[in-house]
Amino acid sequence: MSSDQRICSVGDSFVAGVGDPQALGWTGRLTAHARAAGAARTVYNLGVRGHTSADIAARWFAECLVRLPVGSDGRVVFSFGVNDTLLVDGRPRVEARSSVANLSVLLTTARAQEWPVLVVGPPPVDDAGRNQRIEELDRTFEQTCAEFEVPYAASFRLLADAPVWAEQVRAGDGAHPGADGYAAFADRLLPAWRQWLGY
Amino acid sequence: MSSDQRICSVGDSFVAGVGDPQALGWTGRLTAHARAAGAARTVYNLGVRGHTSADIAARWFAECLVRLPVGSDGRVVFSFGVNDTLLVDGRPRVEARSSVANLSVLLTTARAQEWPVLVVGPPPVDDAGRNQRIEELDRTFEQTCAEFEVPYAASFRLLADAPVWAEQVRAGDGAHPGADGYAAFADRLLPAWRQWLGY
Repeated sequence: MSSDQRICSVGDSFVAGVGDPQALGWTGRLTAHARAAGAARTVYNLGVRGHTSADIAARWFAECLVRLPVGSDGRVVFSFGVNDTLLVDGRPRVEARSSVANLSVLLTTARAQEWPVLVVGPPPVDDAGRNQRIEELDRTFEQTCAEFEVPYAASFRLLADAPVWAEQVRAGDGAHPGADGYAAFADRLLPAWRQWLGY
Repeated sequence: MSSDQRICSVGDSFVAGVGDPQALGWTGRLTAHARAAGAARTVYNLGVRGHTSADIAARWFAECLVRLPVGSDGRVVFSFGVNDTLLVDGRPRVEARSSVANLSVLLTTARAQEWPVLVVGPPPVDDAGRNQRIEELDRTFEQTCAEFEVPYAASFRLLADAPVWAEQVRAGDGAHPGADGYAAFADRLLPAWRQWLGY
């Protein structure tokens, strides 16, 4: 295996770090942590605001192909789901079964490319009804990842013991935290991240 | 004009911040600075290692289209050129006249989309011969941007008075600095950045 790890972090506004005054988000914080250990030399943040699993399925492959050349240790983090659960005219933007189908397609395609994958589940927002849908998605994503033998970080549950997340989301726009919330998110993801990168 | 600034920072490994243990690069540092003033709510880093102006011309438009929806204050930073000047079999990867032609196409396309553009010129590396070619590119890029009435930050000259840049590049891989070098880069770009974003 090449030590030239190139990682595409693909997903939504949480991946992009919207709301973080430090412009790091959880992706930047995990990258900085890994670099101190000589890992994750190159990390591409491909989070896009408002993107559902369907939006991501439409764009991720072309974006990753130009960033993960053959011969490098190319890897992909996927993280999405919150935008799927937004109700529009009483229906979710993407139905749960379609979210899971989209995830399955992503994992199948990544496997064909021999890109190791880590899936980071959707985090909670400041809306009880929506959180119920996010939690259901979290459980089905976990099951899908288990079937693909891909590691899964259950953000929704991992952030349950991080009150700063809920506090900052509520004080912000109802979905995104500030720097401390993202730091707590990165901290909760660290064990899965380290195991995945082998450092 | 919408206050929902969405900025795509399109370019090479310097845009991506390769070598920065803090995982910010100059893009992340300028983003954090702008956010303290309520600007640049969303910044997408679309820097890719090794990419020449030709590589960027082939991918940037699709990547920006999905990130800059109609109705948002969509903007684009372009920064490339160093990879164009790398000699392969005695010839630059991209000839200077093609680099300029590529820049012209990018600026024409961005103008058609009504995306305001800032061009950040290529910085110096630790190679005298290559720096000569970078400096020539810097001059022609400046002229092209003037013709398009697009602001241009002349990184090559701006970094001439930042010894930490050259020191860290030399101590690193010959092209990329560490955190202090990127901080100096961001500092030199700040006047053009602030004027461009109006804060």
